[in-house]
Amino acid sequence: MPRSEFEIIETIFAPLATSKAALGLKDDVAILAARQGKDLILKTDAVVEGVDFLPGDPPDTIAKKALRVNLSDLAAKGAEPFGYLLTLVLRKSVRDTWLRAFARGLADDQRALGVSLLGGDMSSTPGPLTVSITALGYVPRGKAILRSGANPGDLVFVSGSIGDSGGGLDALKKKKRRPALIGRYRVPQPRLSLGQALRHVATSALDVSDGLLADLGHIAECSAVHLAVDAARVPLSAALRNAWGEGEAAVLRAATAGDDYEIAFTAPAAERGKVMAAAKATGVAVAEIGWVTKGRGVDLLDKRGRPIGVRRRGYTHF
Amino acid sequence: MPRSEFEIIETIFAPLATSKAALGLKDDVAILAARQGKDLILKTDAVVEGVDFLPGDPPDTIAKKALRVNLSDLAAKGAEPFGYLLTLVLRKSVRDTWLRAFARGLADDQRALGVSLLGGDMSSTPGPLTVSITALGYVPRGKAILRSGANPGDLVFVSGSIGDSGGGLDALKKKKRRPALIGRYRVPQPRLSLGQALRHVATSALDVSDGLLADLGHIAECSAVHLAVDAARVPLSAALRNAWGEGEAAVLRAATAGDDYEIAFTAPAAERGKVMAAAKATGVAVAEIGWVTKGRGVDLLDKRGRPIGVRRRGYTHF
Repeated sequence: MPRSEFEIIETIFAPLATSKAALGLKDDVAILAARQGKDLILKTDAVVEGVDFLPGDPPDTIAKKALRVNLSDLAAKGAEPFGYLLTLVLRKSVRDTWLRAFARGLADDQRALGVSLLGGDMSSTPGPLTVSITALGYVPRGKAILRSGANPGDLVFVSGSIGDSGGGLDALKKKKRRPALIGRYRVPQPRLSLGQALRHVATSALDVSDGLLADLGHIAECSAVHLAVDAARVPLSAALRNAWGEGEAAVLRAATAGDDYEIAFTAPAAERGKVMAAAKATGVAVAEIGWVTKGRGVDLLDKRGRPIGVRRRGYTHF
Repeated sequence: MPRSEFEIIETIFAPLATSKAALGLKDDVAILAARQGKDLILKTDAVVEGVDFLPGDPPDTIAKKALRVNLSDLAAKGAEPFGYLLTLVLRKSVRDTWLRAFARGLADDQRALGVSLLGGDMSSTPGPLTVSITALGYVPRGKAILRSGANPGDLVFVSGSIGDSGGGLDALKKKKRRPALIGRYRVPQPRLSLGQALRHVATSALDVSDGLLADLGHIAECSAVHLAVDAARVPLSAALRNAWGEGEAAVLRAATAGDDYEIAFTAPAAERGKVMAAAKATGVAVAEIGWVTKGRGVDLLDKRGRPIGVRRRGYTHF
């Protein structure tokens, strides 16, 4: 394919997004005025065997990942999810036990995350298993946190730790036993309560799916600002440091790995206290990792404040 | 796979449908109370290369089919569609020209059918091209036409003609030149205006996707009634009669072929005039093909009123 995914969306598909609700395809979600006083938030995302999960992954974790990558987007918008539509494209040879385990994964998550299956479709394929989900949530009208609200003077934050999922995939490929990292790759943790707590605090937010630097690039572009990220403050877990080491090389690898499903966001410097209070109230670690200035793009800075050369900002399907 | 799609949905997935909006997965759509005075209607359906369309099909017709099979469900519920979410799972080798033609197909249909792209996702696959769409529409609150409202004494109707799409697929496989039928296979015609006109008339409705007899079976089951269909009155187009001949064998083949995207519905016998007025007003042919009685199941009746043996009621993916 001759061009990047982003270019294709912008040039080929964005002209189709004639409804205001599509936000010009500039955000991860579509926002429709719906319930009295609520905006309905919709998100659709597919996971494909061999691309987003591995052929041998347990069916319950495949189900959870398919659902959670969608809920993660809702979380980053400050939405409260309530349901989802499921499209399953399965090989004809799929076993009943596989399907049951898959559904059990969904049932667990429905209880844990407060959502219900709302409808769906099943189809057959000779090729890889594909799970496509459309998730729905509500947010108080006008309170969704978009990509476009970051301002010079804001600080940059990220939840949890970055790179664990990439470390997990790496371990699986190399057949290393790193259960903490592999668990993060297979079953991401949508930061729902944190996202809702950030509704009145964050100026912009999104979930980290392509890679921290790539996704912060979306905020920079949509907000027309520059983001500086201090490499030393990008949060790496002990498990990842154990696997990938410390220092800038490990941070760079983590910040471009993708599949994190953490929330990256900006908030005014004056609101730092409220951000940390939201983190504490919801039990989710939040790290301040950088700041917003006038300009364009994202820089990852070394100890001396100099930009680190980044070859590949994150994962792209094409 | 050991069981039918319907059994799997009923036993494995329906228990997950805890929201009232899911209608227990008994209908094709989920219905959410949304806009003031409106129910939001959502439908998700995927088309897979080699299953729902052929590898050589033009990209614009693939796009249209993916969208229209979803809009057809909305039509049958009496809904007015306004948007859709698109998940594209493409080979990495996909060409720019292919994508442009695909998007052009969508653009044409957006203009013709009054919908807007609302969001989406792109992913890569080594396997067959898959297009998953979630379509959204509104219907006046409580006015969606469900599968479950048929009553003894109602008549059974179907729009347009049945079997053309099956005839088109057959022609493509046999490399015969039958453009009218092939066009019906590649680009179905969602009966949107007819569906909306039936809101206050039809007691049950759905779109014919699996096959006329299979889909009427869903109405029979959800409404807990018996449907009798007079084979001689099932509408076959001149093009199909030219390809498959006349008589019961052709009707049986047509009524189990699937992919018709016509609306099958029931209405009280006293409302026959209103049904025909709706057909006339919207310019869509409607045929009265049978009647509803107490009991269970569907029978296709021969000239003497005897049930014709049916081996396979319609298409199933598994």
